[in-house]
Amino acid sequence: MPDRSLLETFPTPTDTPFVIEHVADEFTSLCPKTGHPDFGTVTVRFEPRAAKAGGVCVELKSLKLYLQSFRTEGIFYEAVTNHVRDDLAALMNPAWLLIRTDWRGRGGIRSRIFATRGDVPTAWLNG
Amino acid sequence: MPDRSLLETFPTPTDTPFVIEHVADEFTSLCPKTGHPDFGTVTVRFEPRAAKAGGVCVELKSLKLYLQSFRTEGIFYEAVTNHVRDDLAALMNPAWLLIRTDWRGRGGIRSRIFATRGDVPTAWLNG
Amino acid sequence: MPDRSLLETFPTPTDTPFVIEHVADEFTSLCPKTGHPDFGTVTVRFEPRAAKAGGVCVELKSLKLYLQSFRTEGIFYEAVTNHVRDDLAALMNPAWLLIRTDWRGRGGIRSRIFATRGDVPTAWLNG
Amino acid sequence: MPDRSLLETFPTPTDTPFVIEHVADEFTSLCPKTGHPDFGTVTVRFEPRAAKAGGVCVELKSLKLYLQSFRTEGIFYEAVTNHVRDDLAALMNPAWLLIRTDWRGRGGIRSRIFATRGDVPTAWLNG
Amino acid sequence: MPDRSLLETFPTPTDTPFVIEHVADEFTSLCPKTGHPDFGTVTVRFEPRAAKAGGVCVELKSLKLYLQSFRTEGIFYEAVTNHVRDDLAALMNPAWLLIRTDWRGRGGIRSRIFATRGDVPTAWLNG
Amino acid sequence: MPDRSLLETFPTPTDTPFVIEHVADEFTSLCPKTGHPDFGTVTVRFEPRAAKAGGVCVELKSLKLYLQSFRTEGIFYEAVTNHVRDDLAALMNPAWLLIRTDWRGRGGIRSRIFATRGDVPTAWLNG
Amino acid sequence: MPDRSLLETFPTPTDTPFVIEHVADEFTSLCPKTGHPDFGTVTVRFEPRAAKAGGVCVELKSLKLYLQSFRTEGIFYEAVTNHVRDDLAALMNPAWLLIRTDWRGRGGIRSRIFATRGDVPTAWLNG
Amino acid sequence: MPDRSLLETFPTPTDTPFVIEHVADEFTSLCPKTGHPDFGTVTVRFEPRAAKAGGVCVELKSLKLYLQSFRTEGIFYEAVTNHVRDDLAALMNPAWLLIRTDWRGRGGIRSRIFATRGDVPTAWLNG
Amino acid sequence: MPDRSLLETFPTPTDTPFVIEHVADEFTSLCPKTGHPDFGTVTVRFEPRAAKAGGVCVELKSLKLYLQSFRTEGIFYEAVTNHVRDDLAALMNPAWLLIRTDWRGRGGIRSRIFATRGDVPTAWLNG
Amino acid sequence: MPDRSLLETFPTPTDTPFVIEHVADEFTSLCPKTGHPDFGTVTVRFEPRAAKAGGVCVELKSLKLYLQSFRTEGIFYEAVTNHVRDDLAALMNPAWLLIRTDWRGRGGIRSRIFATRGDVPTAWLNG
Repeated sequence: MPDRSLLETFPTPTDTPFVIEHVADEFTSLCPKTGHPDFGTVTVRFEPRAAKAGGVCVELKSLKLYLQSFRTEGIFYEAVTNHVRDDLAALMNPAWLLIRTDWRGRGGIRSRIFATRGDVPTAWLNG
Repeated sequence: MPDRSLLETFPTPTDTPFVIEHVADEFTSLCPKTGHPDFGTVTVRFEPRAAKAGGVCVELKSLKLYLQSFRTEGIFYEAVTNHVRDDLAALMNPAWLLIRTDWRGRGGIRSRIFATRGDVPTAWLNG
Repeated sequence: MPDRSLLETFPTPTDTPFVIEHVADEFTSLCPKTGHPDFGTVTVRFEPRAAKAGGVCVELKSLKLYLQSFRTEGIFYEAVTNHVRDDLAALMNPAWLLIRTDWRGRGGIRSRIFATRGDVPTAWLNG
Repeated sequence: MPDRSLLETFPTPTDTPFVIEHVADEFTSLCPKTGHPDFGTVTVRFEPRAAKAGGVCVELKSLKLYLQSFRTEGIFYEAVTNHVRDDLAALMNPAWLLIRTDWRGRGGIRSRIFATRGDVPTAWLNG
Repeated sequence: MPDRSLLETFPTPTDTPFVIEHVADEFTSLCPKTGHPDFGTVTVRFEPRAAKAGGVCVELKSLKLYLQSFRTEGIFYEAVTNHVRDDLAALMNPAWLLIRTDWRGRGGIRSRIFATRGDVPTAWLNG
Repeated sequence: MPDRSLLETFPTPTDTPFVIEHVADEFTSLCPKTGHPDFGTVTVRFEPRAAKAGGVCVELKSLKLYLQSFRTEGIFYEAVTNHVRDDLAALMNPAWLLIRTDWRGRGGIRSRIFATRGDVPTAWLNG
Repeated sequence: MPDRSLLETFPTPTDTPFVIEHVADEFTSLCPKTGHPDFGTVTVRFEPRAAKAGGVCVELKSLKLYLQSFRTEGIFYEAVTNHVRDDLAALMNPAWLLIRTDWRGRGGIRSRIFATRGDVPTAWLNG
Repeated sequence: MPDRSLLETFPTPTDTPFVIEHVADEFTSLCPKTGHPDFGTVTVRFEPRAAKAGGVCVELKSLKLYLQSFRTEGIFYEAVTNHVRDDLAALMNPAWLLIRTDWRGRGGIRSRIFATRGDVPTAWLNG
Repeated sequence: MPDRSLLETFPTPTDTPFVIEHVADEFTSLCPKTGHPDFGTVTVRFEPRAAKAGGVCVELKSLKLYLQSFRTEGIFYEAVTNHVRDDLAALMNPAWLLIRTDWRGRGGIRSRIFATRGDVPTAWLNG
Repeated sequence: MPDRSLLETFPTPTDTPFVIEHVADEFTSLCPKTGHPDFGTVTVRFEPRAAKAGGVCVELKSLKLYLQSFRTEGIFYEAVTNHVRDDLAALMNPAWLLIRTDWRGRGGIRSRIFATRGDVPTAWLNG
């Protein structure tokens, strides 16, 4: 199973609300039915809790290693999306969180999955 | 008739609402009047029921095989669109579902058809 | 006169509301003042009545033949647009209907005409 | 002066409201200060009055000849725009009317002018 | 049959060789097998004979009327291309002549046909 | 100092409200700190007062000469923007006025400045 | 007739061969058959004679005025192209000269004309 | 540490509210974990306080030098964004302020961070 | 007159032939007939002499100051192009040199000028 | 000085000639005159010697570290380009080698430099 212990954090550097987005273009996992590789993009968008509330942000290199840990995993698109959402929500307990996955296509079908936690402002739901 | 028994599901991996979109670029069926092939794109967009409510998602490879089963079918654009909507709605009983078909043109006329089930949020009606 | 008897229908394949759009790129008629040919694109967008209400949809090949019947007609852009709107509204009695024509230009002037029947939802007025 | 007697009309072909747009790419007049030629695009967008209210539409060839009559006229951009608006409003007494002019630039400055008559719906103000 | 008597000429205005190209975007004829309309673009490119050699050029409005005369003709793509080449070659006896037709497609197949008379320079064969 | 006496006006040609936009692509002034030239685009957008209220519009050639008078001026981006806004507002006393400047960049930094006078309608704030 | 006396020259500023291109986007003349205006782009490309050989170049403002003098002239596309070529060749006696005209289209037909004087290098014939 | 004493100001040149945006395409700092360089774009958007309220604007060259002072700093994306926001807010005490950073990617992940001070109008939050 | 004494050089850093191109987007001078400003792009492309042959390259900041010195000069496009070519050829005595100027247009006419020194390889003449 | 000892190699994996290209978008060095940072893209394109001839290829991570070692170096564009060419030529002794640098611009001037070693095939000189 993808190893959430790989994820590290650092303290939110401010008490003022702000928004972070990471886009990982080089995600790959395995189809649980065929064993063939899937390729996609994972977008992580969130507002961290404030510093005074003990807020934390995911550290970028650890996020890279965590996403790389799906490489040998047989897992559906939908499960990847929700799994990443759950692991990052548990790690950071952010004000809100959006995970979007875009898959390059298998058998002529391209897919997109959206999963959220908390109350994502409308301005951050699009795009 | 397109064989809805080809469709398989897997359990929704979470209780949190999320959205899935599959875009099949390589759909083909036959014109019921002329017997000539039609070519188009089928977009499937939905929010599955929650895991705790017994929610399920359509499995991707089975969706591909199901869509391929229209290849030798003589069927109108409108019927394809509603047929796919009805089969997937019956299969998954999703929170909401949108089917969009875009056809490459026959006799100089290009067509698009949109069919829905349930209350599709405005943000997911466009695009 | 363009022959509305060319238009054929088939029963709406469902009771659920859905939307159909046909775009005919190769429309041509004649200018009633000069006799010279006009060239344009005709877009037909509508929501058919439900199957249980006896709803019908225009059949695509018959639509093509109907639009071809303007080929030898001397008729203004505005009349084409309203004529097609009236014939299709009479044929299908749809929930709503939008006809848009885009003309390639004559004497350095390009034209667009929009005609509707019933209450076209805002989302379908644009584009 | 541009000759509004060149403009001809034909009866609105329907009682149902609809929208007409003409775009003239090849407009030219003269700068009243320097005598040098100006080049621009004139867009005419309107909703005619209904047939039963005696509504009329501007005939396209007469519109071309009318716009050509500015060719030898020394007249400011703003005056062209308002003049065309006033002549077409007087000719057709439309439900509403928008004139937009886009000028190719003189001395490194490009200009756009917008003039309206009546209550232009928001959807027709843009673009 | 398309009426070559519609074609008119005017004397070549110079003794120096030069090149003329006309591109007609709104060509339409009828398929001789199905009777359905075909739509395409006809490109006419040539070098006229010199004035001192009695050279002539095709007049543009007459070319338009001549091409419009195919509107009711049942004729294959290949025949259109060669017919136009032969009529214009006979009319002008040019130094060289190239006819290119580009067809919008029927049954999902787009076509281009090239026909020449005389020795077309390489630089004018492309594009 | 840029010479506002260069600016000339002509009477608003109508009592009906309308909108004017001028875009000057070739603006240049000097950096007051380094003396190096700055390059940018100045957009002037406004609604003149009505003719019956003594409304006037800026004359285009005089606007060009006025903007050219910044060529030898050492002046900050922000001061250019507010200076042009103030001079044109004083000249025309328009219903509303928007000045936008876009600067090509200096030291790897590109800048945009927006200044307004009066109540600019939302539709004219964007773009 | 277009007034070649409007054209002025200045001495070639060097003895080294070099190439000049002027592109006039706002050319307009009149169709000699219908009297309707034609719109096009005129490209002038040449290598002037060397200074020591008494070479001259056409002055830009005089070229603009000369091209404007076609505004009221009834003249075919081909004649415009050759006329400009002859006038500029006579004025400058250049090493070589290319005139290209691109016309916006009349009756659905767009045209291009190319005329040359002297031995135009291949690299300057294209584009 | 980045040296906020590098930042200089000049007095707001007006009492009327206006908006300033600076986009620095050539920002670089160091990753605090790996020591490798990071590259990104920093956007600064704000409304200065009015002149009569003692308002000031950041001077452009000093902003360039300030941003260059991060070149040898080991600092997270999130800290850069908040640090710049805090330094510029302290320097100018603006009506409102938005800092956006766009990072070119490390380990296949691209990031964007948004930080604000005061009440940023909706129209300035996007883009 | 533009001050060629502003130009500085540094020794060619190698004996191996190589190619340098500088593109200055912000060139401006004055029209010698009207006094109005001209705007253009100046491209400098050359191969310096080898280090062992005492070859030198133009220093970039001095090139910027040199090009800025045309700002107050009344000078034709052709003279700018040849003047820059002559000054840089005299300064560097390069293996070959190409100067290209692209002017933004005046009175609806855009211009390009090409001047060379030495034997410019074909691969460097285009683009 | 940039440390060429950072560069590592691995043996060419084949005896068949092939071509390698590396494009580094995030290069930065310092201007030797002003001390300000320069930003550019470095392209390395080469054909390694065959395995049987003891051929080697540059190792990618070592290339990254080597290029990063210019970060604190005051060095001209031309020297960067030739320095990289010389270091890589000495390291690999390739069949041929091309270094291209594209600089983002300083003072409104963008630059490109090309340096080669050996006989670069024409097809690899462009693009």
